[in-house]
Amino acid sequence: MVSRAREGDARSVARLISLVEDASPLLREVAAALAPHTGRARVLGLTGPPGVGKSTTTTALVRAFRRAGQRVGVLAVDPSSPFSGGALLGDRVRMQDHAGDSGVYIRSMASRGHLGGLAWATPQAMRVLDAAGCDVVLVETVGVGQSELEVASLADTTLVLLAPGMGDGIQAAKAGILEVADVFVVNKADRDGADTTVRDLRAMLSLGGRHTEAGAWRPPIVKTVASRDTDNGVDDVLARLAEHGEWLDSSGEGRRRRVERAAREVEAIAVAGLRERMGDVSGSAALGALAEQVVAGETDPYRAADQLIAHL
Amino acid sequence: MVSRAREGDARSVARLISLVEDASPLLREVAAALAPHTGRARVLGLTGPPGVGKSTTTTALVRAFRRAGQRVGVLAVDPSSPFSGGALLGDRVRMQDHAGDSGVYIRSMASRGHLGGLAWATPQAMRVLDAAGCDVVLVETVGVGQSELEVASLADTTLVLLAPGMGDGIQAAKAGILEVADVFVVNKADRDGADTTVRDLRAMLSLGGRHTEAGAWRPPIVKTVASRDTDNGVDDVLARLAEHGEWLDSSGEGRRRRVERAAREVEAIAVAGLRERMGDVSGSAALGALAEQVVAGETDPYRAADQLIAHL
Repeated sequence: MVSRAREGDARSVARLISLVEDASPLLREVAAALAPHTGRARVLGLTGPPGVGKSTTTTALVRAFRRAGQRVGVLAVDPSSPFSGGALLGDRVRMQDHAGDSGVYIRSMASRGHLGGLAWATPQAMRVLDAAGCDVVLVETVGVGQSELEVASLADTTLVLLAPGMGDGIQAAKAGILEVADVFVVNKADRDGADTTVRDLRAMLSLGGRHTEAGAWRPPIVKTVASRDTDNGVDDVLARLAEHGEWLDSSGEGRRRRVERAAREVEAIAVAGLRERMGDVSGSAALGALAEQVVAGETDPYRAADQLIAHL
Repeated sequence: MVSRAREGDARSVARLISLVEDASPLLREVAAALAPHTGRARVLGLTGPPGVGKSTTTTALVRAFRRAGQRVGVLAVDPSSPFSGGALLGDRVRMQDHAGDSGVYIRSMASRGHLGGLAWATPQAMRVLDAAGCDVVLVETVGVGQSELEVASLADTTLVLLAPGMGDGIQAAKAGILEVADVFVVNKADRDGADTTVRDLRAMLSLGGRHTEAGAWRPPIVKTVASRDTDNGVDDVLARLAEHGEWLDSSGEGRRRRVERAAREVEAIAVAGLRERMGDVSGSAALGALAEQVVAGETDPYRAADQLIAHL
């Protein structure tokens, strides 16, 4: 299946990602088979508040990458939803825009009720698309709370989308957004207030202070009008992305981010493995007996946790 | 501090919960001191889609419990927000409704960017309020995706709030909501469509099938008009809650839920402890070196995770 996916067979790619989502026992083998073929794709994270046009911008970016002859994988992640039905519907609608183009693979991922679902499944799905020969893997997330911080931790380059007339939204989200953005995109720039949004953003960035050291990357702000039919400004976004890619290479930050990302992935798998072992322990009488003691007030949860760990 | 909290000193209660939120090193000691005094409070979970009036209903329930002479603790949890500022503002507004009443303690908890924040901090904050002599601890959550399932896992009894005219909302959320609700409250029942909502809900419940076994609890549906000034139907909710409490006791389900809850809490603390140890490992060269090997394609994340665990 891995070799067929490497030849660009979309059905094999889909099956491999389903193995990831379902935490299949085959995953270990799959991961070992993928490993030698990974590390080539560039990972772009795309986030922003609801209503700024994330999926239309993703579609416009995909078109632009395709014009440049790049193979593109898209993972649309909705960490707030334990349900995958809605996501699948959106999938199908979006697939139509690229129907018949074997250079594009689009997949929605729901977190399926797992806490830590994004941290666990997304890097592995990225790895599948990477090994399958995607030049670019675009991870798009519904920007609520911590998800925008998480998507940044997965990406080489993080795009933050905003739109005019949501000044308060920017204020509310700025703590997170200012930190994670490598490139700002002010979408719907044909609307009133686009210049104000750009100015506000610039003011906040200059207050931020993070980007003043020598050699630091200063996040550019690009205005776009991306819809199903228009791509205004999108080539400009690609140019800024290329510049950021060069900076990642020359500064060593790119390598640092990849190592950091791998470390986090390894840690997440290790934690899941330990949790599973604890599940086995809870299948035995140990956790149950400890929980009874906590309910009776005979012990506290910390002492009980120590004893549980001692059982491993 | 624990003994002052037990005497009902609100400031000591606040400090203890802050220790929980900040994951203070003192927590172990605090937990040990609290343990003998816990297990008395009844935990109510309250959830539902945005806009159904969760905080006004909470306020009305608090008033009703106070009329019945019960001491009440409220934890308002917003798991989608890594920021606590907004929550604190809401706190202050709501505190005014019960200003000067030492029988009510209200606290907002943000998840502070921790994944698993709700699972980790909330049970311990509940434990503080329990030991401080609250008869009822009401955990209110912003109902998005998995949070409503989580709040149910923390509670003895879960109230699910709905409002008329959100039929689609019910449809979207029903998979989760039907499973977790012990009592349904259709709030804003003075609005058009309240009877339709009740009917739809009843139809979905009868399709669900879960509640048909002998001795099973059949979730009642109560109509309310709860606002800052009105309490219509709220006493009826309290009556249904009392019935559910009796059922929990007589069926043994109450004890089962408490033990299950304690088991989950112990497990969460154990996982956090193991994660911390892994953080220590990552401070050493081990995780870094493994991550470099993953980036180079020399190993895969699963094998690396195995080696990391071996380091513990």
